[in-house]
Amino acid sequence: MEIGRSSVLTNVNEHSSVVPRSHSSNGSRHGGSSSGSHHDDSNLPRKDYESLDYDICYNKPYENYIEAQTASHSISKIEIIKWVITILIGLSTGMVAFFIDTIVKQLSKLKFHTVDQSIQLCSADGCLVVSLVIMVVINTGFVFIATCLTVYEPVAAGSGIPEIKCYLNGVKIPRVARFKSLIAKAVGVLFSVAGGLFVGKEGPMIHSGAIIGAGIPQFQSITFKKIKSKFDFFRTDRDKRDFVAGGAAAGVAAAFGAPIGGVLFSLEEGCSFWNQKLTWRTFVCSMAATFTLNFFLSGLDSNSWGLFYSPGLINFGVFKCADENKTNGTCRLWTALDLFIFVLMGLIGGLLGALFNQLNKWLTVYRMKHVNTKQPVVKILESLLVAMVTTTVAFVASMMLGRCKPIPSIMTNTTSSAIEEDVRTYFCEEGSYNDMATLFFNSQEEAIKQLFHQPGEFDLSTLALFFVFFFLLACWTYGVAVPSGLFVPSLLCGAAYGRFVATLLVNVIGYDRGIYLGTFSLIGAAAFLGGVVRMTISLTVILIESTNEISYGLPLMLTLMVAKWCGDFFNEGLYDIHIHLKGVPLLEWDVPEGMHRLTAKNAMCSDLHFLFPRTRVSVLHRILKTTAHNAYPVVSVVDRAEVSDLADISVNDMEIKTGLDPTSIEQSDSPRILKFDGIILRSQLVVLLKNQIFFKENASPSSQPKISYNEMTSEYPRYPDVIDVANSQIGYNQYIMDIRDYMNPHPYTVYPDTPVPQVFNLFRSMGLRHLPVVDHFGQIQGIITRHNLTHEFLEERLSEINDMEDLNVFDRTRFQ
Amino acid sequence: MEIGRSSVLTNVNEHSSVVPRSHSSNGSRHGGSSSGSHHDDSNLPRKDYESLDYDICYNKPYENYIEAQTASHSISKIEIIKWVITILIGLSTGMVAFFIDTIVKQLSKLKFHTVDQSIQLCSADGCLVVSLVIMVVINTGFVFIATCLTVYEPVAAGSGIPEIKCYLNGVKIPRVARFKSLIAKAVGVLFSVAGGLFVGKEGPMIHSGAIIGAGIPQFQSITFKKIKSKFDFFRTDRDKRDFVAGGAAAGVAAAFGAPIGGVLFSLEEGCSFWNQKLTWRTFVCSMAATFTLNFFLSGLDSNSWGLFYSPGLINFGVFKCADENKTNGTCRLWTALDLFIFVLMGLIGGLLGALFNQLNKWLTVYRMKHVNTKQPVVKILESLLVAMVTTTVAFVASMMLGRCKPIPSIMTNTTSSAIEEDVRTYFCEEGSYNDMATLFFNSQEEAIKQLFHQPGEFDLSTLALFFVFFFLLACWTYGVAVPSGLFVPSLLCGAAYGRFVATLLVNVIGYDRGIYLGTFSLIGAAAFLGGVVRMTISLTVILIESTNEISYGLPLMLTLMVAKWCGDFFNEGLYDIHIHLKGVPLLEWDVPEGMHRLTAKNAMCSDLHFLFPRTRVSVLHRILKTTAHNAYPVVSVVDRAEVSDLADISVNDMEIKTGLDPTSIEQSDSPRILKFDGIILRSQLVVLLKNQIFFKENASPSSQPKISYNEMTSEYPRYPDVIDVANSQIGYNQYIMDIRDYMNPHPYTVYPDTPVPQVFNLFRSMGLRHLPVVDHFGQIQGIITRHNLTHEFLEERLSEINDMEDLNVFDRTRFQ
Repeated sequence: MEIGRSSVLTNVNEHSSVVPRSHSSNGSRHGGSSSGSHHDDSNLPRKDYESLDYDICYNKPYENYIEAQTASHSISKIEIIKWVITILIGLSTGMVAFFIDTIVKQLSKLKFHTVDQSIQLCSADGCLVVSLVIMVVINTGFVFIATCLTVYEPVAAGSGIPEIKCYLNGVKIPRVARFKSLIAKAVGVLFSVAGGLFVGKEGPMIHSGAIIGAGIPQFQSITFKKIKSKFDFFRTDRDKRDFVAGGAAAGVAAAFGAPIGGVLFSLEEGCSFWNQKLTWRTFVCSMAATFTLNFFLSGLDSNSWGLFYSPGLINFGVFKCADENKTNGTCRLWTALDLFIFVLMGLIGGLLGALFNQLNKWLTVYRMKHVNTKQPVVKILESLLVAMVTTTVAFVASMMLGRCKPIPSIMTNTTSSAIEEDVRTYFCEEGSYNDMATLFFNSQEEAIKQLFHQPGEFDLSTLALFFVFFFLLACWTYGVAVPSGLFVPSLLCGAAYGRFVATLLVNVIGYDRGIYLGTFSLIGAAAFLGGVVRMTISLTVILIESTNEISYGLPLMLTLMVAKWCGDFFNEGLYDIHIHLKGVPLLEWDVPEGMHRLTAKNAMCSDLHFLFPRTRVSVLHRILKTTAHNAYPVVSVVDRAEVSDLADISVNDMEIKTGLDPTSIEQSDSPRILKFDGIILRSQLVVLLKNQIFFKENASPSSQPKISYNEMTSEYPRYPDVIDVANSQIGYNQYIMDIRDYMNPHPYTVYPDTPVPQVFNLFRSMGLRHLPVVDHFGQIQGIITRHNLTHEFLEERLSEINDMEDLNVFDRTRFQ
Repeated sequence: MEIGRSSVLTNVNEHSSVVPRSHSSNGSRHGGSSSGSHHDDSNLPRKDYESLDYDICYNKPYENYIEAQTASHSISKIEIIKWVITILIGLSTGMVAFFIDTIVKQLSKLKFHTVDQSIQLCSADGCLVVSLVIMVVINTGFVFIATCLTVYEPVAAGSGIPEIKCYLNGVKIPRVARFKSLIAKAVGVLFSVAGGLFVGKEGPMIHSGAIIGAGIPQFQSITFKKIKSKFDFFRTDRDKRDFVAGGAAAGVAAAFGAPIGGVLFSLEEGCSFWNQKLTWRTFVCSMAATFTLNFFLSGLDSNSWGLFYSPGLINFGVFKCADENKTNGTCRLWTALDLFIFVLMGLIGGLLGALFNQLNKWLTVYRMKHVNTKQPVVKILESLLVAMVTTTVAFVASMMLGRCKPIPSIMTNTTSSAIEEDVRTYFCEEGSYNDMATLFFNSQEEAIKQLFHQPGEFDLSTLALFFVFFFLLACWTYGVAVPSGLFVPSLLCGAAYGRFVATLLVNVIGYDRGIYLGTFSLIGAAAFLGGVVRMTISLTVILIESTNEISYGLPLMLTLMVAKWCGDFFNEGLYDIHIHLKGVPLLEWDVPEGMHRLTAKNAMCSDLHFLFPRTRVSVLHRILKTTAHNAYPVVSVVDRAEVSDLADISVNDMEIKTGLDPTSIEQSDSPRILKFDGIILRSQLVVLLKNQIFFKENASPSSQPKISYNEMTSEYPRYPDVIDVANSQIGYNQYIMDIRDYMNPHPYTVYPDTPVPQVFNLFRSMGLRHLPVVDHFGQIQGIITRHNLTHEFLEERLSEINDMEDLNVFDRTRFQ
């Protein structure tokens, strides 16, 4: 079971063995896993990540709430509010994307303008070292701001996609959806990108969208406590997750101009809670984001307001053969024969991606041990070092290793001024350009476009060197304490690889079948990106939408598929590697092979603490303080000989009168059944305690005050813990709390002999948090949480079971 | 509960009231709904549709089967086979699409060539009546073939999309996935399209894809009994449904060149059983279909094998301003201001769609009462009548009402020969064309392209008249006994409406902001189609992919959204109307409002027939013959005073010895608990009986023969019924069957007080067939099937509950 935030862990284990010994013998070693003893073991998921709950708790306050809404016809009102909020999320995400894009462009322009002038001057004077120093100072300055913001809010580091993946999967990552994180992320990414680091702004854009999705429906913020309204809808994990899915999709849509890809991204990461209406709402949200960004970008850039030319932050340009080449058949985007080359490229892309991931994994482990444990200043120093090295490498490589190539006539003649503007002519004579500088002294998006569409040549050695430098530096950079996306660096790196292959094929091997060179660069970019992140359908669709060329569907899909298969042979995708290193209990799509041998009884946590429907407040208080569970099963003790529908009340009276501590029942030699009545969350109990929902021993139970659903959930999502409740209550020995109305009286349950794949399916599909295991007589046997269903946990349990099988115990417990 | 196929309904009700009277009092009126009394009531879903089961039954044979596979490492082998089959499904679907397209083109060419010549001759001679007669004869001849095929296999009528929707939703439509249906559908649609009916070949294409998806993995066919192999994987509804989803997606992909749209279509209709791997596999299947079709079409049409120019059966042409207009800014695809017009067009499109649906609904109801009940000859005559009227209207309208418009100079100059070829110059002088004839004397796909891209003019009156004729005839045609898609006729009808609006705006109102006229036609087409079918995200993506222009995303989405909202105000989508008229128990996405008032106990069927873990074969035989249930709960009678883990065996012995008939237990005044052990399907019982899996009374229970998973499922998907079992077994009074190993010992269950929305969520998400309702003591109270969760059933139950609430009964049963 999960650990509550307070975790006052005193004498947890002594009252716990309620389940008969014979049953728990093969479960207790792990059943006691609530004591958080796995913190040191880096292989096992850590217990301090809480789970979200996508299931609705139908208790009495909620039913009254729904009833009131149905009566006042406000359900359709809420539906409309949902749509309004969805569109607001899309608009805001688009605006944030526009803000990031504009500022980054201004900052980069400023920087390159200054450096440009200095180089122009110094090329003659030989003072190029001064130019380098100017560039280093500007870049480290920018990166310093970014890294300071990240130290202030550590969750803003990295791309944010792993965090969003976890959130959509159902894990609550602390502080991931706060307003503060949004500020740190959105402002930080400006400076890390403008600071010349090999990072992208697309991943952080997705994170920003998700935060906007989480924040807008709440109409309040922890960071700004004053922003608080009386708006009290959407106070459940379910609604919040739906909006976060929309926000994440909007982020993808704004980043790549890919609204369909955005929907598929959210779908791929959080499919457990999906239905048609939600898909459609998410799509509308994505569209709103794309077209908001598009409206402003097109308006501001080309002054054509109302036309829509720039759908995303990144734009791959137009893949199109020049008309004269198309009609005479000397240029084609691709043909069936090229597919074989694409498959080979995918294979190599997968290998390169796996290498990238492996290097980054070693680096991250090292960083976790040696950098993150020390003072924040170490992190800052590392970022500055990366910035300095990156700048120096880019500068020196351009100066020393760049080749001068003639500017092709097509560029000087036609109106395609965009590409002409962006070639760099440093250290070259008139009429030619420096190919290395063109790649290093441009924004990465521009460099990608150069590789895709530049009709001029890049030297093979330039491309190879650029790839190596960029590969190593990007690998070092991902994980440094700055907001840093991975998509664009991977695309650029892959585009260089693709262009290298294209140049090799055409210039060296002589494979000139009139194929558009940009196609190979694109395929190279897809292959490397696919090898690194291992996404499937969403990445394919994102790339198709970014190129605005649906006929690239098959080549892209083939390449990504091969790259993923090849990469998966060696390691996981980079996001998954980081998620696992953090120890997040992510639920995969399926259980590992062979798990049909485990049953719910094998996997469950049987170290439970029970509550009765009516419990003394003092007892309740003590249980909350001395245990760390997030949920407590509620049971009634029923005499087996006298089972009847009316038995509950008399038995409950008995419980109260004897002052029986529910946790100390020993079932094995008792003639009574522990009838499972329901389950109640720690947070619900604390809210009840805090609001003094209990009655005096001698008074009528109906004198217990009632509390509405809105009052119950008013502090969502950060409920108080038991330490926030007035200590005076500990002495409330003569008070009784009746929790029946506030528990979940009918959660989904499984039988102890249900195989784990079936349990997993239920848990994953319904987005559960606690799944009680109840036997065929209605008695609770244990509880399953997401920690009991991670691959690592299940594999350990299975090897234990297999060990026991040798002792011939397995068959007896399995098929008895 | 559902009714088995045999339905030998004798004395069903007398042994049924096992649930205590006090509990079933408010459930028995409907609990007894298994008697099929609703066949007459057209409002309630019919009981003769069986449900598919997406849940895996983890019983002992299945576990042994999985264990053997894990041991021999054949799980990865099966994974590879799945991929191979998936790609095969895609390829085959693409080939079928190519076959349909090629033959239709040849037939149409033949027809139009003959008619063309005749008209050319007769325009001079004045013998146009002869031309009309020739055309009528050809068309009725073609339609006659189509309708004969449909009479031979009635499930091939219509578009097939409703049937696929039902299948993906989890309802087994008889014969829908047979090879025979594929032949009737694929060949039939050739002739119904070539016969000049206003029907499309896209819907039937989707159905064909689904049949291919269902058929290939089975490697056998009912139609051709000789095609049977030893290939015995994928013998579950789960696998079959996955492949059908792939096939349906491939069908969409081939029909519209929309692989992403195909995936989203399957997703929209069958989201309950979705995960990332399946999405990706479905996507690969779609891509394979698109590019197979593309490869052959491009190769054959333009002789450029290996280039990919025609991704789908329908092709909307290129939406692109002529270059010279684009650069001087006089042509744009759309601007922000146009969005307001699009919203208005969506509104009107929704209204027109709702009108279309309403007319077709009345017609269908009339047809069900008066046409379908009679001899097949009536159906055939109706088809021929439709063909004759359609032909005559098209001919006469072209002759009498067409206007002659000058052929624009751009067409005679440039190389865009495609459009020039397809204008019709009948009854017009040199250098001009007949606008009405251009629409009526072309294939519908070509007519759509004309409306989208024809630079020449269409007269306002021509467009209005064409719309009215086409609207009425298409409405009449949908439902006639021929394979008939709805997409293309709706698109054409809508394109005429859109072109009308465009012409009105530009020529009459003078709204000429240099907007590409085709955009309005496209929006009109989307608005009308959206108003008719009411699909959301999948339709948007299909249209975006068909136009190959991602920037149309926002306008299309807005239009479709408005059209759907507007139409939903009046009635349902046409597919849903037909599904409901057929009485299929489709599960919607959500329960209706207010359903939180109902609990599982209110909705369940409590008229159960129990089995014991060990039952006399003669008793079993009788139960199977006299009841119609598809599943039977298995219970043990446990003495409440002596509950212990070892009780089962002794109690079972007692059951057998007393020869107790399990169905006659009266629980209310018994001191025993009916412990719920599991659930067993009728089909499983029959297979066990047929294979004589039982033992002699005095022999050891271990003498009962065993049967493997492969033997159990060898007859999937058409299991024998009890009448197929040798009658001699009825006398097997001294034989006992132990079914414990073959039942599902741990199905998902719900509590009787679980609210219906929560029950629905479980049932829908997990794709269940039978959901037992078990109380807090582990006793079975009833079973919920899809029939207990349809909107109609729930609404009826709710109104009953509300009636009782007035008598003050509600509160007691609800919150006791």
